[in-house]
Amino acid sequence: MRTFRIAMVQMNSTVGDLDGNVRLITAWLREAKKAKADLVAFPELAITGYPPEDLLLKPRFIADNRRALQEVVRHCRGIAAVVGYVSQSDGVDPKPARSSVVQAGLHELYNAAAVIADQKLITTYCKWYLPNYGVFDESRYFHPGRRLPLIRVRGVVVGVNICEDIWLPEGPTGFQAAAGAEVIVNINASPFHLGKSRVREQMLATRAREHGVVLTYTNAVGAQDELVFDGNSVILDHQGEVISRGKAFEEDLIVADLNMEAVARARRTGRKKILPKRIAAAVELCAAPLPSVRNAGSRVVGAVAATVDPLEEVYRALTLGVRDYVKKNGFTRAVIGLSGGVDSALTAVLAVDALGSENVWGLFMPSLYTSQDSHDDVAELGARLAISVHTIPITELFNTYRRELAATFEGRAPDTTEENLQARIRGNLLMAFSNKFGHLVLTTGNKSEMSVGYATLYGDMAGGFAVIKDVPKTMVYDLARLRNFRGTTPVIPKRTLDRPPTAELRPNQKDEDSLPPYEILDPILQAYVEEDRSLDEIIEAGFDRATVARVMTMVDGSEYKRRQAPIGIKITHRALGKDRRMPITNGYRNS
Amino acid sequence: MRTFRIAMVQMNSTVGDLDGNVRLITAWLREAKKAKADLVAFPELAITGYPPEDLLLKPRFIADNRRALQEVVRHCRGIAAVVGYVSQSDGVDPKPARSSVVQAGLHELYNAAAVIADQKLITTYCKWYLPNYGVFDESRYFHPGRRLPLIRVRGVVVGVNICEDIWLPEGPTGFQAAAGAEVIVNINASPFHLGKSRVREQMLATRAREHGVVLTYTNAVGAQDELVFDGNSVILDHQGEVISRGKAFEEDLIVADLNMEAVARARRTGRKKILPKRIAAAVELCAAPLPSVRNAGSRVVGAVAATVDPLEEVYRALTLGVRDYVKKNGFTRAVIGLSGGVDSALTAVLAVDALGSENVWGLFMPSLYTSQDSHDDVAELGARLAISVHTIPITELFNTYRRELAATFEGRAPDTTEENLQARIRGNLLMAFSNKFGHLVLTTGNKSEMSVGYATLYGDMAGGFAVIKDVPKTMVYDLARLRNFRGTTPVIPKRTLDRPPTAELRPNQKDEDSLPPYEILDPILQAYVEEDRSLDEIIEAGFDRATVARVMTMVDGSEYKRRQAPIGIKITHRALGKDRRMPITNGYRNS
Repeated sequence: MRTFRIAMVQMNSTVGDLDGNVRLITAWLREAKKAKADLVAFPELAITGYPPEDLLLKPRFIADNRRALQEVVRHCRGIAAVVGYVSQSDGVDPKPARSSVVQAGLHELYNAAAVIADQKLITTYCKWYLPNYGVFDESRYFHPGRRLPLIRVRGVVVGVNICEDIWLPEGPTGFQAAAGAEVIVNINASPFHLGKSRVREQMLATRAREHGVVLTYTNAVGAQDELVFDGNSVILDHQGEVISRGKAFEEDLIVADLNMEAVARARRTGRKKILPKRIAAAVELCAAPLPSVRNAGSRVVGAVAATVDPLEEVYRALTLGVRDYVKKNGFTRAVIGLSGGVDSALTAVLAVDALGSENVWGLFMPSLYTSQDSHDDVAELGARLAISVHTIPITELFNTYRRELAATFEGRAPDTTEENLQARIRGNLLMAFSNKFGHLVLTTGNKSEMSVGYATLYGDMAGGFAVIKDVPKTMVYDLARLRNFRGTTPVIPKRTLDRPPTAELRPNQKDEDSLPPYEILDPILQAYVEEDRSLDEIIEAGFDRATVARVMTMVDGSEYKRRQAPIGIKITHRALGKDRRMPITNGYRNS
Repeated sequence: MRTFRIAMVQMNSTVGDLDGNVRLITAWLREAKKAKADLVAFPELAITGYPPEDLLLKPRFIADNRRALQEVVRHCRGIAAVVGYVSQSDGVDPKPARSSVVQAGLHELYNAAAVIADQKLITTYCKWYLPNYGVFDESRYFHPGRRLPLIRVRGVVVGVNICEDIWLPEGPTGFQAAAGAEVIVNINASPFHLGKSRVREQMLATRAREHGVVLTYTNAVGAQDELVFDGNSVILDHQGEVISRGKAFEEDLIVADLNMEAVARARRTGRKKILPKRIAAAVELCAAPLPSVRNAGSRVVGAVAATVDPLEEVYRALTLGVRDYVKKNGFTRAVIGLSGGVDSALTAVLAVDALGSENVWGLFMPSLYTSQDSHDDVAELGARLAISVHTIPITELFNTYRRELAATFEGRAPDTTEENLQARIRGNLLMAFSNKFGHLVLTTGNKSEMSVGYATLYGDMAGGFAVIKDVPKTMVYDLARLRNFRGTTPVIPKRTLDRPPTAELRPNQKDEDSLPPYEILDPILQAYVEEDRSLDEIIEAGFDRATVARVMTMVDGSEYKRRQAPIGIKITHRALGKDRRMPITNGYRNS
């Protein structure tokens, strides 16, 4: 049987760390060779990490990326490899300028896949479709490619394309198949959001079936600032069946033997697609020279990692997001302000799962308004997680502020000013702790609060990384319960999950004094913030007009806070970071 | 003599305030009619304000913008008008998808110019070239237009295009001229940066000359978040001579009579350009029906406002930036932490010039390390500016923090932790003041500090708007001196300008203990941050290797601070806001 052994490296690059990424790539290259693969695919922009953002504007960075690729080329013997990097040419004449970006002095760049074999750069495919929506800014940096190279490797014709290219029904995949490709190597840095992995696999199955090709989808893994890459690389046969699937949220090497006879048979009997002239002119067939002795070995059956439940996916995304942000930024330990509430409890548990309990410290900063329940629950949580918890009461500090401000505030009644003061004293103590001991402060605000601005700037919003910033409050509870089901003893105290949420900034305060119940707030927020629904549409879905209007006003009025918030991990379709670019000065009232 | 009377409205839209913008447009329409203009041009996206950012993703906002345009159409009688708005069609078949943005559900949008006459929408031009670099994200929202309408108004053939279109030598202007346009109406929302107005006028003169057309360049004026639109609208004749120029940084109506006979004569004798087929197919000629009785009046000689010196331009941009941010966000008053240093002094003066001294409050928060000079200079500045200055000492608060943290910090020497504590106490007091009285806190950090991270997050960085965030320290002194030359008495005390800069967070501290002298730091920062130069290139320009390397490390290591900084006014080629999109997690060492 004519087979083709393909490998996919689901690796964790670090943006900008070219040397480190080359070391990772060459180490994985060795593993792929040991597995006797004919061809190995690495993720999109594996050399630079994704997304490199404005590093791409530095000519020196582009040159260094080219040198890094040459280093990979030198290490690539007896195996063909597809490696993502930044190219300065797509091999045809420069296009006419699309905008005055040329005047701005930007060099011509392409999001590219190098095809390497026998220590040679055989050809480069440049991405056709550049995503420039949501968190993506690829048109800021890249030109779209126009060539359509195919590569013959050990008699098999392979077409390479990149990420977004595979999503478009009219993308290069169909043209490559029509031009003779039997295997499509699609490389990716596809950020996680809830539900995406399922939609993606369905899309890939459709694409494989409609073009009668084997489709290998290599994804990056790891976290970069707001984004988590979930792995879940997958190989589908020409009928759209999954042959092999990589792990979720972990580095992995996936190896599979493809039955090329079955593909060839199906292609002989299938409907022939005719290539448009313009596209036919873009096709090039390159041969990848490999040592003539085939690295024959025993047949590999592609492992199929199980898919992960959506909520569990979110939990793992958050854990990986914390671990990579902390480590890739040179920290080892984190400190968290614990309040006795569910947000800080979940954040602490995630941090412990990401970093180990020895690397997580809690800071408990009670005031006069802090209940005995909160005291007890913080102590309980600390004990169950086996983390150090320091206690610094804020009453004396709060009294000093009030004394110092008394003359200035004379005749004014207490209001949110005094509540914010307490939150900011806590922020100051957390930052002092971080400054003195070098811990990263993790903030604990959830998406519901961040959306309506129910948070204090420089207070509970103070810190380096906002772990659950994209997690709605109702999902915070779901995740806490999910985690409590693991192991024998629940880590989060039951009372933390049961008692009504409160900021404890004045006597007997409850979140529901200021906000609608979270079961009502969260779907309104999803409709308004994530789905761009209008007031009328949200009311039509069954919500009260006054409530919806009030929520919309709170969201609109707190844009300035979100702009100064620490970054956090994207887990929904639209997070409150690069995904959402609202003006602060904004006269629009969506009535 | 055959003349054509053209008007340009240099107006100050507010992003999102559709009703307010329509009111402004219709009021200016009346003025233009009073001036008996044949055609009046409004800025790019005058209806929505520029840039509307993710408001454009809301279908309801697009519908409301269309309704707003209809309202303008109803008001447009006896005059032709060109008005910027968002169109959902460029009048030809939809293009094939350029990316899976279609999957993301984004409607097809165009950055458009409506041509209106006699209460009818005659035609729409859709912008061809979409800037997607620097502060611009137009490819996130818009599709490029492909049509090339021309309009005959009172016998004169007019071509309309938008902003970026005019910057490209191969843009639509040349095609419109070749197809018969005698006048080009180019509408803009062109953000200010130092030196841009000169480059722009030179480019416009070249464009007018090379195509032998009259060129009317209508710019927006006013501020939106980081951006200031500088006005400086201009009309150039077919030889590239300025006929008329609008005011800088103020709303203005510019009216001029164009000598169309001279244009026609020149065009008869000039070289004929042949239109490529593809372009010729895109040309459409529309007639703008106007009342047959010409609004004849006495000849208007276009006023030519004087150009403004670059440093004065910066001063005016900052003043307008503060005024519009404060007012468009519903504030009337601002509060500033005064230290006795030049940064807070300049910020206070700018605020007074923008808002009036009755609307600016100073907060002086001395510590043990605050010198008598600082006490005196703050008092002096307050008196000269006639602003209220409140004094709240921080010594007692600082001591309380140290006491409360003593057990936790036992055995640790004082370090920057204690310096940051002081800055954050001040931040907390300023925010308390803002919460209690409703003043907007203006921060006082300059670009040099913000670039190297010589600032305390949640401390001196706490506030709503960072006025001089894009002004390098050396330019802070230049602006202070410029302002001191106005009037009879300098407003900023001489000693503030003369004594060495200090943060006064420990005894006898000077900025130069931690930073290179600003005369050396600023050019290094310009090369690294604004020009993307490498270490070697900067050294080659004459700087010391160790100093440059240290500065680069400081810049790279403080990205997380800048991400949480308040927005501020862009005045250089590359500001530290939307202009610069660097990853926080970043392993690149530019060695």
